[in-house]
Amino acid sequence: MPIYFRKNLERMMDVSTYSCMSREELQREYENVLEAFNHCKAQGLNLNMARGKPATKQLDLVSGLLTMLQKPEDCFDGDIDARNYGQLSGLPCARAYWADVLGCKPSEVFVGGAASLNMMCDIVSRAFTHGLLHSPRPWCKEETVKFLCPSPGYDRHFQIGEFYGAELIPIPMTPEGPDMDMVEEYVKDPQVKLIWTVPKYSNPDGIIFSDETIRRFANLKPAAPDFAIIWDNAYCVHEFVGDYIPFPDIISMCAEAGRPDMVYEFASTSKITFAGGGISCMAASEANIHYFSDIFGVQMISYDKVNQLRHVRYLKDKAHTLEIMKLHASVMAPKFQVVSDYLNREIAPLGFAHWNNPKGGYFVSLFTMPGTAKRAWQLCAEAGVTMTNAGATYPYRNDPDDSNLRIAPSLPPVEELEKAMEVLCTCLKLAALEKLLSA
Amino acid sequence: MPIYFRKNLERMMDVSTYSCMSREELQREYENVLEAFNHCKAQGLNLNMARGKPATKQLDLVSGLLTMLQKPEDCFDGDIDARNYGQLSGLPCARAYWADVLGCKPSEVFVGGAASLNMMCDIVSRAFTHGLLHSPRPWCKEETVKFLCPSPGYDRHFQIGEFYGAELIPIPMTPEGPDMDMVEEYVKDPQVKLIWTVPKYSNPDGIIFSDETIRRFANLKPAAPDFAIIWDNAYCVHEFVGDYIPFPDIISMCAEAGRPDMVYEFASTSKITFAGGGISCMAASEANIHYFSDIFGVQMISYDKVNQLRHVRYLKDKAHTLEIMKLHASVMAPKFQVVSDYLNREIAPLGFAHWNNPKGGYFVSLFTMPGTAKRAWQLCAEAGVTMTNAGATYPYRNDPDDSNLRIAPSLPPVEELEKAMEVLCTCLKLAALEKLLSA
Repeated sequence: MPIYFRKNLERMMDVSTYSCMSREELQREYENVLEAFNHCKAQGLNLNMARGKPATKQLDLVSGLLTMLQKPEDCFDGDIDARNYGQLSGLPCARAYWADVLGCKPSEVFVGGAASLNMMCDIVSRAFTHGLLHSPRPWCKEETVKFLCPSPGYDRHFQIGEFYGAELIPIPMTPEGPDMDMVEEYVKDPQVKLIWTVPKYSNPDGIIFSDETIRRFANLKPAAPDFAIIWDNAYCVHEFVGDYIPFPDIISMCAEAGRPDMVYEFASTSKITFAGGGISCMAASEANIHYFSDIFGVQMISYDKVNQLRHVRYLKDKAHTLEIMKLHASVMAPKFQVVSDYLNREIAPLGFAHWNNPKGGYFVSLFTMPGTAKRAWQLCAEAGVTMTNAGATYPYRNDPDDSNLRIAPSLPPVEELEKAMEVLCTCLKLAALEKLLSA
Repeated sequence: MPIYFRKNLERMMDVSTYSCMSREELQREYENVLEAFNHCKAQGLNLNMARGKPATKQLDLVSGLLTMLQKPEDCFDGDIDARNYGQLSGLPCARAYWADVLGCKPSEVFVGGAASLNMMCDIVSRAFTHGLLHSPRPWCKEETVKFLCPSPGYDRHFQIGEFYGAELIPIPMTPEGPDMDMVEEYVKDPQVKLIWTVPKYSNPDGIIFSDETIRRFANLKPAAPDFAIIWDNAYCVHEFVGDYIPFPDIISMCAEAGRPDMVYEFASTSKITFAGGGISCMAASEANIHYFSDIFGVQMISYDKVNQLRHVRYLKDKAHTLEIMKLHASVMAPKFQVVSDYLNREIAPLGFAHWNNPKGGYFVSLFTMPGTAKRAWQLCAEAGVTMTNAGATYPYRNDPDDSNLRIAPSLPPVEELEKAMEVLCTCLKLAALEKLLSA
C-alpha cells in the first residue's frame, strides 16, 4: 500500500481557525460564504484555470519567430536544406541549441516534432512492444510492469502509463523532490521499470529537485536492467521570478555513476514560443540516440526541420532564450502574485489549506482541507470557473486525501484571474464549511 | 506460397535482342559495355536517384508558404488561436481543406503533424497494443497477424508491418491495381488484418487503381471484423503530365457498402510544399476519428496548428493546390522525360527490361532481366549512382525475381539525371550480359 505525505496536512489542521470555531460560528460563516457563492454564480462567469496554457500576451511577445525564414536562402543549416527530407535526429544547429540549453552534448540530442509528450509516449510504446536498449524482452511480455509516479504529478504522464497497462505507484513529493528513500527501495523490484519526473518546477508543486535528490537519481541501481528515468525538463528555463537557476546535466551524471542509458530527458519550446507549435527534444546517451533513431526511422523520414531552423534562428542560444523567458516572466509574475495575494488574504487566516509559492513553472499546487477538493472543484464549475479535475494530479485520478487542486493562472488576463480566484477562495471555504458542519 | 506476376517478364524475354545474340556477339557487347562502365566509374560521380525527394527548384516554387503568417493577428482561424494548445483533431480550416482535396467531409478528417507515415505507424502500433475500433482483442494477442502487401510497393509501409511482427503477404500488382481476386480470397482468412495501398500513382508502379478495383476494395467482406485498408493517397493531386484525374472518395464508398470503419485514408503536403515540413491528415469514418482522437489524446495535446494555418492560407483549396501542382509538374515532367528517353533509346531495343510510363507520382518502376537487379544496383553504386536498394519494393526486401528497380528522378537537376541514367543503363546492360554469359 502506498504511503502518503500527510505531515503538512496534519500540522495545518491543528491551527485552523475554522477548527477553533463553535458550531454556531461555523453556521454563521457558512451562511455568509454561501451568499458570496451565490453572488459569484449570479455573474454567469466563464473562466478557465485548468491547463498550463500561455496567455495571448505571451504568444504575441514571440512574434519574431514568424518572420525568421522568409526566402529560400534562409532555409539552410550549412549545406542542409531544411525544406527537404533527411536528418532524422534533427538539424545540427537544433541539436546544438538543445545541448546548450540542457548542458549535454549535441550528439546526445534527438530533435523531434512539436510535442515532447509524443516522444515520451513513443518511448513507452516501443518499450512495451519492442523493449528499451537493455530490455531482456518487450515490456508487454513481462507479467507486471510498474511505474513510479511522484505525486502530485503531471496527469498526462500518468495517463500514458495507464494506457499501456502499467501499475502506477504513487511516490510522495518532499520539498526536495520525490521521496528518494522510497524510490531507492522500490527500484529493488525488477518489475519497477520507469519513474516519471519533472525535475525543475515540478508539475504541479513547482519544486526544484535538490542536488542531493538528483545525485541519488543518477546513482540509482535498479534491479531492472532497462529501468528508465523519464526526466521531463519541461520548465528548464521557466523562471518567472528572479534569475535563472542553473541545473545539472543528468545525462553525464548517470554516465559517471555507471548507468549512462538509464535516463531520457525531454524538453520543448511549447512554453517558450508557441504552445503545440514549437520544437521538442529528447536528450539521452549516444547509445540510446542510436537505438531510438533506428526505431523512429520506422515511423518518420524526418521531423519538421523548417520549424527547427525557424526556432534556432529566433532563440539563438541559451543566453538569448533566457532573455526571452524574462519577457514571459513579466506577464506571468503578476498572475502568480494575484493567486498568492488571494490565498494569503482569503484562505491563510482560516488555516485549512496550504500551497506552494513557486518561482517558475506554470502551476500553484494547493492542498485544501482533506475530503473537500472534489467538492470545491464542483462548486467552481457551478460558478463558471473551470479548474483541473480534482484528483488529476494522482495516479488513476485518485487523490487519497481528496485535497490537492492544481491552479493554472497563466491563461486568463489579470482582471479575469482576480474574479476566478475570488470564486475559487469562496468555493474552498464553502466546501470546508460543508464538511465541518456535516461532521 | 505467393503467386507472382510473371506474365510481362516472360513475354519480354521472348523478343529480347540479347536473347537472340550468339555467345560471341554477347562477349563483344560485354566488352563494349564494360568499357563504357569503366568510363562512367572514372568520372567519380556522386548522384542520387534513391528517394522521392523534391528538387530544390520545387521547394523554391512554394516559398510563398514562408510568409503567410507574419503578425499575431494572422494566426487565428476564426476565434481559434493557432499558437496555443487545443483542437486535437486539427484547425477547422485545415480539416475543411483536406476534405475538399480528398472529397470527404471535414468531420471525417483528422489533421496531424508533418508526416502521414507517423500516423500510419501510430494506427498499426495502437492496433497491436490496444486494437482498432472493431477489434475483438489487441493484435498482439492474436496468434498470427497477416498484412497484404501489393508488390512492388512502398518499402516504408512494409517496414512498419515487419517492425510489429506481422506476416507480410505479397499481392501482385496488375495495371488496374492489386490483384483483387487474390485480395478477396485472402481476406477470408480472419488472421488477415490489413492491406497497404497507394491507390493513385502507386509507389513505385505509378498505377491508378481502376474504378472496378476501387469498387471491389469498398465491397470487401473480410472475415476479420477489424480488417483495415490503409489507403495512402500520397499522390492524390500529383499529376506531372496532363490534367488532374478525379478520384473517388473511398470513405463514402465503404460506408455505402456497409463497412464504414474499414478504411483509413492518408495524405500530406510533403510533396506539395516542403518534404517533412508539411501537414498530414487521416480521413476515416467519424466513428474512427472519435476513436483515434481519444487515443491520440494520450500522446498529444495538439499538433502544430501554426503550420496547419500557414498551409491553408497558402494552398487555399483544392483548385489552388492543383495550380501549384502544375508548377511542380513543370519541374518534374522534363526529368521523367529524361528517364523515358534513356530507357527507350538504350534499353528498349535490347528487349530485356520493361517499365511504366507514369503521368504522376514520383517513381518509374523498372523490371530488368530477372536475377540481375541486385547486381545492377551494385554496379550503379560502384559508379557513384545511389539507387533505392534492389528488393526494397517487396516484403522482407525480397524480390523473388530479383528484377524490380525503383527509379526516383525528382531530386537531381536534369544534367545530373542524364549522367545518372547513362550510368544506370550501362549497369543494367552489364548485369544482363554477365548473367547471359555465365549461363
